[in-house]
Amino acid sequence: MMRGQERGFILDRRLNSESEPVIWLGLCELRVMNDRRWPWLVLVPHRTGVEELFELTPLDQTMITFEVNLVGQALKEQTGCTKINVAALGNMVRQLHVHIVARAEGDPNWPGPVWGHGLREPYRREDLHQFVESVRQGLSRPDTP
Amino acid sequence: MMRGQERGFILDRRLNSESEPVIWLGLCELRVMNDRRWPWLVLVPHRTGVEELFELTPLDQTMITFEVNLVGQALKEQTGCTKINVAALGNMVRQLHVHIVARAEGDPNWPGPVWGHGLREPYRREDLHQFVESVRQGLSRPDTP
Repeated sequence: MMRGQERGFILDRRLNSESEPVIWLGLCELRVMNDRRWPWLVLVPHRTGVEELFELTPLDQTMITFEVNLVGQALKEQTGCTKINVAALGNMVRQLHVHIVARAEGDPNWPGPVWGHGLREPYRREDLHQFVESVRQGLSRPDTP
Repeated sequence: MMRGQERGFILDRRLNSESEPVIWLGLCELRVMNDRRWPWLVLVPHRTGVEELFELTPLDQTMITFEVNLVGQALKEQTGCTKINVAALGNMVRQLHVHIVARAEGDPNWPGPVWGHGLREPYRREDLHQFVESVRQGLSRPDTP
């Protein structure tokens, strides 16, 4: 097990089927939504039975804030998007997860939300791999002052 | 000026017109959206020129996490809702603000998002005051173990 991972954690079945793993961070597993309409990442803390952000311990709250901001900044730099959308909703999937979506003027449903809009459009396999790889590289790149 | 408030901070015009002030926290002004379809609060950090969560300083990131979770927990206890939705979107209003919405099964557009759904329905003035007062009381109530 890696640092911060919880023994016996089981990823929600729907999250598992609609997204693919990218990288393990300190508290969360970073995944990419398999929907090519938007660059869309999801952070899932490996904590069992937690549905709300405020149910995390104070340390985990600090950790997830750090990871959300790390990923959000990298995704914005990578995509050159107009705005990062960050959201913990959980109306459908109760297992705590945080969406990080790169939005740009003119993208599907802009400036409305991505949730509940139309149907998911899966990537071609090679495009998904390419996106995952570019996210990984964006996260490993040192900050340039 | 109160602790944490920034001299010369100007609230976005649209946020100002669609919401009402509730209380001042350490970093953010807490406001209520004047839309009686959902119990809907908004946190606005008094920081000029910040659009993304990751643009806040590390201390402010910790502060806003604390305030988001404080308000989210209080709103869930007050409303007995099914799920708290937390989101920093900013596609329309660029000034950084975080939505905290109490969602319940069967509410308008459940389980879809509140953003971009139909038209805002303002409260009657006395109902708005009552909601604001109950939010203030929820925030001042000490945690019961």
